[in-house]
Amino acid sequence: MNKHQDYLLNKISSPQDLKKLNLTDLEKLAAEIRTLILEKDAVIGGHLGPDLGIVEATIAYHYVFNAPQDKIIWDVSHQTYPHKMLTGRAQAWLDPEHYQDVSPYSSPDESPYDYYTVGHTSTSIALATGMAKARDLSGGHENIMALIGDGSLTGGLAYEGLNNAAIEKHNLVIVINDNQWSIDQNVGGLVTALKKLRDSNGQTAENPFTALGFDYRYVAEGNNIKSLIEAFRAVKDVDHPIVLHINTLKGKGYQPAIAEEEAHHWVAPFDLTNDQPLQKNPATPTVNSVILDVIIQQINNGKQVMAIDAAIPGVFDLENFKKDYPDNYTDVGIAEQESVAFAAGFAKEGGIPILLENSTFLQRAFDQLSHDVAANDLPVVMLVAGGGISNQSKTHLGIFDQVMISNLPNWVYLAPTNLAEEKAMLLWALKQRNHPIAIKLPVNDVPQTPQQNQKVIVDYDQINYQINWGKDVAVLALGDFYSLGKSIADQLGATLVNPLAANILDYQSLDILAQKHQIIITLEDNILDGGFGQKVAAYLGPKNISVLNYGQKRVYTDQTPINETYLQNHLTVEQILQDLKTV
Amino acid sequence: MNKHQDYLLNKISSPQDLKKLNLTDLEKLAAEIRTLILEKDAVIGGHLGPDLGIVEATIAYHYVFNAPQDKIIWDVSHQTYPHKMLTGRAQAWLDPEHYQDVSPYSSPDESPYDYYTVGHTSTSIALATGMAKARDLSGGHENIMALIGDGSLTGGLAYEGLNNAAIEKHNLVIVINDNQWSIDQNVGGLVTALKKLRDSNGQTAENPFTALGFDYRYVAEGNNIKSLIEAFRAVKDVDHPIVLHINTLKGKGYQPAIAEEEAHHWVAPFDLTNDQPLQKNPATPTVNSVILDVIIQQINNGKQVMAIDAAIPGVFDLENFKKDYPDNYTDVGIAEQESVAFAAGFAKEGGIPILLENSTFLQRAFDQLSHDVAANDLPVVMLVAGGGISNQSKTHLGIFDQVMISNLPNWVYLAPTNLAEEKAMLLWALKQRNHPIAIKLPVNDVPQTPQQNQKVIVDYDQINYQINWGKDVAVLALGDFYSLGKSIADQLGATLVNPLAANILDYQSLDILAQKHQIIITLEDNILDGGFGQKVAAYLGPKNISVLNYGQKRVYTDQTPINETYLQNHLTVEQILQDLKTV
Repeated sequence: MNKHQDYLLNKISSPQDLKKLNLTDLEKLAAEIRTLILEKDAVIGGHLGPDLGIVEATIAYHYVFNAPQDKIIWDVSHQTYPHKMLTGRAQAWLDPEHYQDVSPYSSPDESPYDYYTVGHTSTSIALATGMAKARDLSGGHENIMALIGDGSLTGGLAYEGLNNAAIEKHNLVIVINDNQWSIDQNVGGLVTALKKLRDSNGQTAENPFTALGFDYRYVAEGNNIKSLIEAFRAVKDVDHPIVLHINTLKGKGYQPAIAEEEAHHWVAPFDLTNDQPLQKNPATPTVNSVILDVIIQQINNGKQVMAIDAAIPGVFDLENFKKDYPDNYTDVGIAEQESVAFAAGFAKEGGIPILLENSTFLQRAFDQLSHDVAANDLPVVMLVAGGGISNQSKTHLGIFDQVMISNLPNWVYLAPTNLAEEKAMLLWALKQRNHPIAIKLPVNDVPQTPQQNQKVIVDYDQINYQINWGKDVAVLALGDFYSLGKSIADQLGATLVNPLAANILDYQSLDILAQKHQIIITLEDNILDGGFGQKVAAYLGPKNISVLNYGQKRVYTDQTPINETYLQNHLTVEQILQDLKTV
Repeated sequence: MNKHQDYLLNKISSPQDLKKLNLTDLEKLAAEIRTLILEKDAVIGGHLGPDLGIVEATIAYHYVFNAPQDKIIWDVSHQTYPHKMLTGRAQAWLDPEHYQDVSPYSSPDESPYDYYTVGHTSTSIALATGMAKARDLSGGHENIMALIGDGSLTGGLAYEGLNNAAIEKHNLVIVINDNQWSIDQNVGGLVTALKKLRDSNGQTAENPFTALGFDYRYVAEGNNIKSLIEAFRAVKDVDHPIVLHINTLKGKGYQPAIAEEEAHHWVAPFDLTNDQPLQKNPATPTVNSVILDVIIQQINNGKQVMAIDAAIPGVFDLENFKKDYPDNYTDVGIAEQESVAFAAGFAKEGGIPILLENSTFLQRAFDQLSHDVAANDLPVVMLVAGGGISNQSKTHLGIFDQVMISNLPNWVYLAPTNLAEEKAMLLWALKQRNHPIAIKLPVNDVPQTPQQNQKVIVDYDQINYQINWGKDVAVLALGDFYSLGKSIADQLGATLVNPLAANILDYQSLDILAQKHQIIITLEDNILDGGFGQKVAAYLGPKNISVLNYGQKRVYTDQTPINETYLQNHLTVEQILQDLKTV
């Protein structure tokens, strides 16, 4: 049921309705939107600080411009809650029963006011420039705007976008949403450059935007609707590229989000009365605590290790580590390419880099994983979080990194089946200096210690399959799908195999397994195409053995409940047992 | 035999020898190096303009600094010929019999003065920053320098590198080699920014480097050894990050290279007396002329097409096209991420983008192919050149793009077997508006027209294998390996199949083929891991049929003669026929 039937927002079914309001009402609307963001995030979690900071700019944008004819591209689109509320989707905040109705990112499937499915940073300027070019070629005249900020400016594509946008010949507005933050604190020279602009009220000559040739405007009060309306009116229908730099406050309206920006960039469900998360921290060890223990042990042993991430210390629970060990921690900002190339340089000079990456964002660094790390065969150690089938948005799936990395030469791609194995693999990876090693962190619950009859080895120089012998069927269960494999093997009395690596096959064991069984099945928490199973099928192709591969089909899921995805891909014990009857 | 026994260069076996020379001799050395670059390039081809422009800076660097203790990272490393001559490898230029002894890029396998195998742009600052961090952690004090320019600054990673380098706390020198060019003309706001700096002799306040917090120096005469020695001495042993901007002349010393920079960025063997290439243009149609004909036809038909490349118009013979159709051509500079995201925006707004990419450089844009194009399922048409096994350097192999793209959802990845099919596929790709389409351009000689019993279809909405029936063995030969497949099928009386697509299988045909044959073999001009053949093997895994995949193993080749690579991977008719006897 609508919790706020008295809200002005109930009368806004499209931006057209907004244009009828006076400034007092617009300010009232801003307060309502802020309350709704907080109420919904407290219940189901979501991005918080970025959305609280952009409320006024969103209202002013829709007040001045005529969406959807005029087009705005929200970079990353994690700050689109106010936009969604003003473009016909307010019920998804007003009514708790409808909280799950909309995507947390912009989505063309959802509304004509959203132009892209987007969730990675720094793409908006390039997208907007392409749109502007197509508009010009077809003789159109609508306004096209990219709104970028909240750390997205540290990604190189943002700069490529600026470089090309600067020479466009017609209308193109780039709003720099300068809230002084990315997910983590902003880093690098950009901090200096933006500060000089803010401190001079946009007047300093040392302006990287005008240096590139842009027209430039500055709005000091980026949370003041009146200032923003004036600023937007001034840039509407301009006939050239212009940068509009707005100074906003991340987390505005919620003191805990202002005091601790990083912790409130994205929040899990929490208690609005005391800001405490509803869920307790999990008991240790966890996937992350294992990593931290190893890194700290290495430092204490005098090893020159460097933990490197791209603005996601929270994903790896590094909050304390980065304070306690500043010399052994580097956050490069939202700049995955930099993180990997930096790690390559660090390894080349004799250091031990430990890259901490998120599967989906790591896609940004494919060429560095290939050209800089693999072709130079440098001993970079990389831990990949979030790699596996999930209920995430289409833009945040973790099913691609394994294929991306494991088919490159020189990379060893390991997949632990329990926390003890994760630790052993990490220790070995840090000790060897021969090759780059990726370790796919389990995303599903994995046991702390080896399961029945399973051993943990300490040296992965050679991949020797861990085999728990049964008969007729051999189940090769990679990484966090080992438990699924065990359930199947237990039911069938089948052989259960821990293959350890996604891209190095134990040919000798495979030969013996093929001799002793009628069927081999492979399980992987990953897309099938280009994956582990297809390598097994290819190796066994010339032999007289049936091979069945299980994993996710080459299609997108989009916040699909994980059990539904499992069902669609025959990733349940029952379905697999049924399949085996028909081979 | 050494052609220039009288050259000073004969006495330079390491940079130490250089330090004994006076300025007159250093200038004499520069002239010798220039002559040698021209003489060798004329015979075997190579990068020309970039190397001619950097002669003096290289001499001055080695005169002032103490390599290899002090370290210089050459961005892209296509300008390292002078560096190689001064670090013990001059014979590879002095003696034509040794022309092939060294790699055209920096190579740690070759010399301790080279730190990375590198051939893609914009990585040097990130690599140097990582090295500086490792140096600091281990208590070292050597100078670390990145030398970047010649277009590399348009790549986003260069900016990510600058952003992070700016806040380093110790020695780090970034030399901006500003020759006003990339491969093609430099593009974008960067042109404006660098021009303002040059025009003001480095004095303008509108300085993007100082804006980021860098110390900054400018050298107006970047081809003057004396100026450069002074400038390098001034930045040697500095205790902070500094940008040294040097104004150089690409192609210096060879008038045709100054007059036509793009054509002389890289040259095929040519006649030094008249600058004419030794090899004539191939007769049309070619792989490229087919594309150009189609694009021009589309424009003439009033279609809103945009040919988009990332600084490589020469690869696609676009020199005339870009002059004749400026509204339908966009060169984004060396910025592959931008090219793909820009194309996504162009498609979204209703235009028809035609991306013209080089397989190896396209790796830089993986996330845009995934997150921006595939997740939005936009009708981007992409032509990929250089995708296949080659004798290229390790950094320039074209065997990875197919795996990178074809395992993503929504992408259709087609591989034509002849020029008529290339045209049909391109026309269909431009007409459909359902999905992104990649077309792998043949790299080996392919027939102009269909081979015996082969038909060209015009609609690829469904993949229906083109089958030329034989018996016992079915040969699935993808793309430019169709001719190899035909030779095998002819010898065996086997079935020959054109599978058309790398990532969409014709299950119905595969079922029938499996029923009617004992063996299926797959051929692809690509890495095996994650490729076409493994998909076929996986689909046929449960069936009683032998499948053999042929392609390149997951290892790097490095200027390996192509026939040697074929032999190592059993990609000859004789080897495959032999293999079949043993199945």
